Amino acid sequence: VPVRLPTIAWRDGTVQLVDQTRLPADEVLLTCRTVTELVAAIRRLAVRGAPALGIAGAYGVALGAATNPADPLTGARAAAQLLEVARPTAVNLAAGVRRTLAAAVDAAEAGADVTSAALAAAQALAAEDAAASRAMAEHGLPLVPPGARVLTHCNTGALVSAGEGTAFGLVAAAHRAGALRHLWVDETRPLLQGARLTTWEARQAGIPHSVLPDGAAGSLFARGEVDLVVIGADRICADGSVVNKVGSYPLAVLAHAHGVPFVVVAPTSTIDLGTACGDDVQIEHRAADEVTSYAGTLVAPPGTPAYNPAFDVTPARLVTAIVCESGVASPVGAGTVAALVVAARAGTTS
Amino acid sequence: VPVRLPTIAWRDGTVQLVDQTRLPADEVLLTCRTVTELVAAIRRLAVRGAPALGIAGAYGVALGAATNPADPLTGARAAAQLLEVARPTAVNLAAGVRRTLAAAVDAAEAGADVTSAALAAAQALAAEDAAASRAMAEHGLPLVPPGARVLTHCNTGALVSAGEGTAFGLVAAAHRAGALRHLWVDETRPLLQGARLTTWEARQAGIPHSVLPDGAAGSLFARGEVDLVVIGADRICADGSVVNKVGSYPLAVLAHAHGVPFVVVAPTSTIDLGTACGDDVQIEHRAADEVTSYAGTLVAPPGTPAYNPAFDVTPARLVTAIVCESGVASPVGAGTVAALVVAARAGTTS
Repeated sequence: VPVRLPTIAWRDGTVQLVDQTRLPADEVLLTCRTVTELVAAIRRLAVRGAPALGIAGAYGVALGAATNPADPLTGARAAAQLLEVARPTAVNLAAGVRRTLAAAVDAAEAGADVTSAALAAAQALAAEDAAASRAMAEHGLPLVPPGARVLTHCNTGALVSAGEGTAFGLVAAAHRAGALRHLWVDETRPLLQGARLTTWEARQAGIPHSVLPDGAAGSLFARGEVDLVVIGADRICADGSVVNKVGSYPLAVLAHAHGVPFVVVAPTSTIDLGTACGDDVQIEHRAADEVTSYAGTLVAPPGTPAYNPAFDVTPARLVTAIVCESGVASPVGAGTVAALVVAARAGTTS
Repeated sequence: VPVRLPTIAWRDGTVQLVDQTRLPADEVLLTCRTVTELVAAIRRLAVRGAPALGIAGAYGVALGAATNPADPLTGARAAAQLLEVARPTAVNLAAGVRRTLAAAVDAAEAGADVTSAALAAAQALAAEDAAASRAMAEHGLPLVPPGARVLTHCNTGALVSAGEGTAFGLVAAAHRAGALRHLWVDETRPLLQGARLTTWEARQAGIPHSVLPDGAAGSLFARGEVDLVVIGADRICADGSVVNKVGSYPLAVLAHAHGVPFVVVAPTSTIDLGTACGDDVQIEHRAADEVTSYAGTLVAPPGTPAYNPAFDVTPARLVTAIVCESGVASPVGAGTVAALVVAARAGTTS
């Protein structure tokens, strides 16, 4: 039975989410009836990805209020304490939690219904995220040529968003518009987010797709079978350089060598004007066993050292366009990237 | 207990080889006492790689003669029949078998000892392969700068050669010469020859090394941590374009973008002057399950299609040098590549 989208939702007083740890073998909807269950789900990565974590945290605060009807504000506060530290470095999680708790506190001070206010705040956050997905897809659609064969990397769709996601959201919109011929999905070693998760999203959306080893992308470019590269971003620096999942930069170099546009789709919350350029970004290096083993099976001699950065940096000169909910930066540079942020701020205050 | 090199040898009337299917978890020496056992070992890929298969086939014919002392020529012929078809598309296997059988037939016609002649022919083949490894390493050594951090792809060392191999042989020679600072080993998806086998060879040779996801190579180049790329080749076309394990071409594009030399090490038997250029090469496309599963675990939804070419093509303009046993072609083009073949022929007839 295919699960319903969105992949995180409030249903009948519970938080329901697609259990990402069970994909791709099993499609399982996880129902969290208590904050404890939701915290456990976050801890074991049943839900992951920046926007999705923010929404999960927000719903979690509402769940804390709803499950403590005698004193919903205390329930919301207790939930917030647990949720904020469920994944310590996930800034979106803490932000979603705080925003929803603030709404609950405001409601309590105004004598309004705390649970309803918290739930409304969480749903507003989810709605904003879904709206941002739609806006990015709309802005990006003119960049997709008719009959496009699009190559993507990592996982950027409904599993990490209340909407259709960033890069994947644009791909899905292009599919609906009849502009997409094929989606090439990099498997995205070492954690295989492309193979495990993006293929699942593509199947849910009915998009024709194939998965490939990351090293096979060069062969696709050489055969002229890639018309566009579309990826997300973990951080965009002030100069327009893009920090994203390791393996993105080689795609940019290949795209440049073959004259193929390289488009980054990410919300303006990803733009960090306080970081001048990619050299200033501290790249997380992860454990060797992500490379030297898989699902418990050793694939290199015991103790083999590994080079395992989580991200790489693509310089602005290799990025054809950055698509945000506030518009498109192209060419990509300090001026056009700053303009995206200005437009977003104007949009939220207008 | 570390196994002894070479990884295929004739010992005490048997063919001994390192069981590649047990690496990297276990280092197991497989002793084949009969042709049937050797054929089974070849079939289940306990031994693989073009030169190694040729040598295995040659020793197998000698084994057929030795295990049928009443009529060694009939034993050799029967062995040849079984071995030639053990891997139908492995041309080196059939070539090694035929050459050794021809020596056995010649010995029988001359009234000489058939088993000794077959064994001598097999050992000569192995010795030639080892000598070619040494010659390639010698010719290539001046291309390795002092303190080099070398990136390699796939598996090209002692596991696929009677010597130290092609690209890996050069790396090992540079290590002994004190010129090698570090070896970066692409894991080489989908079959992980780098992670499973090249790391094992590096450990055996005492070479400092790290394994990396293929997509992380771009990050290494960007950080200035690659001084040289050294790979092998499955076929070199008349124009100097290089057909090698998929993932080689992206490394060539990255090396070019970063001004890093890209060197191919392969015997002249790899040069195919009858194939004009890479466009004329039929690339083998392999089964999807190599990509959609990993170390026996499903990593994509069941039935997900995969793009899984075994090889890609690197055009000559991206190749800094081709190193053969007969010399070095640099710059790489039709003239210099043909000269390598001419020099090799002159060498064998002189």
